[in-house]
Amino acid sequence: MAEMRLALRTAEVIAVGSELLGWTRVDTNSLFLSERLASLGIQLTLKTVAGDDRDRLADVFRHALDRADLVVLTGGLGPTDDDVTREVVAAVLELPLIEDPSIVERIERRFARRGLRMPEINRRQALVPKGATVLENANGTAPGLLIEAGVRVVVLLPGPPRELQPMMEALVSGALAERATAERLYRRVILITGRSESHVEEAVQPLYSRWRTASPPIETTILASPGQIELHLTVRAPSAAATQAALASATAQVRDAIGDDVFSTDGRSLEEIVGDLLRSRHLTIAVAESCTGGLLLSRLTDIAGSSDYVLGGVVAYSNAAKTQFLDVSANLIAAHGAVSEPVAVAMAEGIRSGTSSDVGVAVTGIAGPGGGTPQKPVGTVAIAAVGPDGLARVRTLLFPGGRALVKFQASQEGLDMVRKMLIAGC
Amino acid sequence: MAEMRLALRTAEVIAVGSELLGWTRVDTNSLFLSERLASLGIQLTLKTVAGDDRDRLADVFRHALDRADLVVLTGGLGPTDDDVTREVVAAVLELPLIEDPSIVERIERRFARRGLRMPEINRRQALVPKGATVLENANGTAPGLLIEAGVRVVVLLPGPPRELQPMMEALVSGALAERATAERLYRRVILITGRSESHVEEAVQPLYSRWRTASPPIETTILASPGQIELHLTVRAPSAAATQAALASATAQVRDAIGDDVFSTDGRSLEEIVGDLLRSRHLTIAVAESCTGGLLLSRLTDIAGSSDYVLGGVVAYSNAAKTQFLDVSANLIAAHGAVSEPVAVAMAEGIRSGTSSDVGVAVTGIAGPGGGTPQKPVGTVAIAAVGPDGLARVRTLLFPGGRALVKFQASQEGLDMVRKMLIAGC
Repeated sequence: MAEMRLALRTAEVIAVGSELLGWTRVDTNSLFLSERLASLGIQLTLKTVAGDDRDRLADVFRHALDRADLVVLTGGLGPTDDDVTREVVAAVLELPLIEDPSIVERIERRFARRGLRMPEINRRQALVPKGATVLENANGTAPGLLIEAGVRVVVLLPGPPRELQPMMEALVSGALAERATAERLYRRVILITGRSESHVEEAVQPLYSRWRTASPPIETTILASPGQIELHLTVRAPSAAATQAALASATAQVRDAIGDDVFSTDGRSLEEIVGDLLRSRHLTIAVAESCTGGLLLSRLTDIAGSSDYVLGGVVAYSNAAKTQFLDVSANLIAAHGAVSEPVAVAMAEGIRSGTSSDVGVAVTGIAGPGGGTPQKPVGTVAIAAVGPDGLARVRTLLFPGGRALVKFQASQEGLDMVRKMLIAGC
Repeated sequence: MAEMRLALRTAEVIAVGSELLGWTRVDTNSLFLSERLASLGIQLTLKTVAGDDRDRLADVFRHALDRADLVVLTGGLGPTDDDVTREVVAAVLELPLIEDPSIVERIERRFARRGLRMPEINRRQALVPKGATVLENANGTAPGLLIEAGVRVVVLLPGPPRELQPMMEALVSGALAERATAERLYRRVILITGRSESHVEEAVQPLYSRWRTASPPIETTILASPGQIELHLTVRAPSAAATQAALASATAQVRDAIGDDVFSTDGRSLEEIVGDLLRSRHLTIAVAESCTGGLLLSRLTDIAGSSDYVLGGVVAYSNAAKTQFLDVSANLIAAHGAVSEPVAVAMAEGIRSGTSSDVGVAVTGIAGPGGGTPQKPVGTVAIAAVGPDGLARVRTLLFPGGRALVKFQASQEGLDMVRKMLIAGC
């Protein structure tokens, strides 16, 4: 092509639809678009959700054009008065809308196939801004549009995912690929447990500046939720080969700085990692729970194929159940309290011997909001794991947060204790 | 207050965080904010998701200030370099940032309670734009901020929902309520299980047009997810009195049309409803699970105070565990298969007599992806409940979807079977 064109590096997505501004529906198209754009090395830099208000949409679209190389608008291409995207875009770009008879015909045929005549309002879907490329919609009446707006590119896609996705795939292997740079984005997610965000940040901070000035440079994002810290590493480079080495080396540096608290570097969840460790060593597991109420075992059994290594478990809320199902002696409970390290160990041993499993893990604690004491406040949890070697590991932790968070963090720590026991080779 | 202030009618939300621009995470805080703002009659007119880029965030914030009465920014208040919200807002509003020693102290205390020293970087969270009101954060280190920017209001809230939500609730009953108009939105959510979306839609469709023309008119939204249909009724009016009568009458009409499959009309979840039914009748419950892997019991124990009526449970994945912990005879399993109504009933009876509970509920099925047969395909689940009367109810269902969805739907049906048994008065 003779004409000079801008290589597309940045994109903004504008999702149009008042329903997306309520409290029940979230725009998920942008996740798909973000991933497909990244595969072309185009970075999604901003997302907007706009309603059906013409002026506000025009304002937002104008600003997006000022900032990004590519603007993708989704939704608002239907036949009704509320569907304003086509008209707003044409008005901002000062392009006349012209009815395309071949689109009218296609829509008429779609209706005819279901024995219906096309309602007159659908004619609006055949309006095309002058010079735009029409993108065929195999799964609906609204065609998409691609518009060259000076050096920028504007794409309009219908809102329903099953209409939008095939059209976007066609663009990614066609018109957008031609306009992308030679570079692509590569990403690695490192998952860490057992540390606070600030402590992870302190440990890896010295690496950031090294990575930022490396070639290729590595960008980082840190994300914290209770019981789990995520470190996202992103590289922009022309080929997978160079980046994989850079990402592998950066991952190794994080492992050096953080140690065994790094539990995943390949997208697997903690329950998946534990399951894979058990499976590879042909070991079985059983779980005894009190305050987690079945959550630990439920997470283990979320993994397909977990019936190969999960034998089962007991949720013993009452002291009587602890004695009956787990053979924990009433004297031990009386001496130390139900939330104590000796009882946690006895529970883990009880479920292990009761099911003849290789690994037994147990959690007993106070999830709250009631039940706390000055000595054992809400959030106090004793966790024990007994391995194939028959030896018990046990620790007591104090988790912050409400009931659901205490349950989750305790289940996370229980799984992690098993993981650490298994990677230590016991 | 003598000073004239703008009544807040429109709001924009800006969610800050590069992770929200990737393909794994969606901003859900804005749903909560939209609903809470609507309760004050403040309409959410635009949402933006911005990354950690200062210039782009400044640009977006400036435009939001031009359009909306209230701008709420969420996220980006953490202690790291990526957390830019505080600084960008202060820069755009031309307010100096001043360290607030009382915030430093509060953060130090938070760390000290867990036996940790405050990392130096957390000091950034104590920076306050001059004149801003500090919003205390009961669940984290980052305080929120409320800034009067001329006639506009700007609110900064931390990203984690458990930190953001209580702060927003405090604003909704306090500073924002003072600034709202006289109209409010009132909402009622009706939860239904055991029916498909189209069956619910058919049953309630005749009510829609009646409601739309009523005074005040009632708007409806129907939302379907596997195992649960939600019907949202919304009224905009100047006072609660008139709307409550209208919403109560509409709710009664839905109950007439749908019957007992309506399980909640007051915001309570199914596990909460079941818990309240058990508590009010002084009954206890125990659970035997196979394919749900602890999920049913974990849901029951998500409710605060559930230790009053939950005795415990057993997850018996293997046939041996079913026999050992639940006293299910090996012959019965051999004759009917582990996934069968006789085995489900025996499991429910076994856990009930083993724990001496009033109610026993059991789930056995094939969650997939493996384990299906032509006679019992993946998704086949037998569910049994035995009540205080000692009688068993049992049914077999075939649930669509993958492993996680089968688990959830089976737990939902198990809970609902207990609910229907208890409201039938047995």
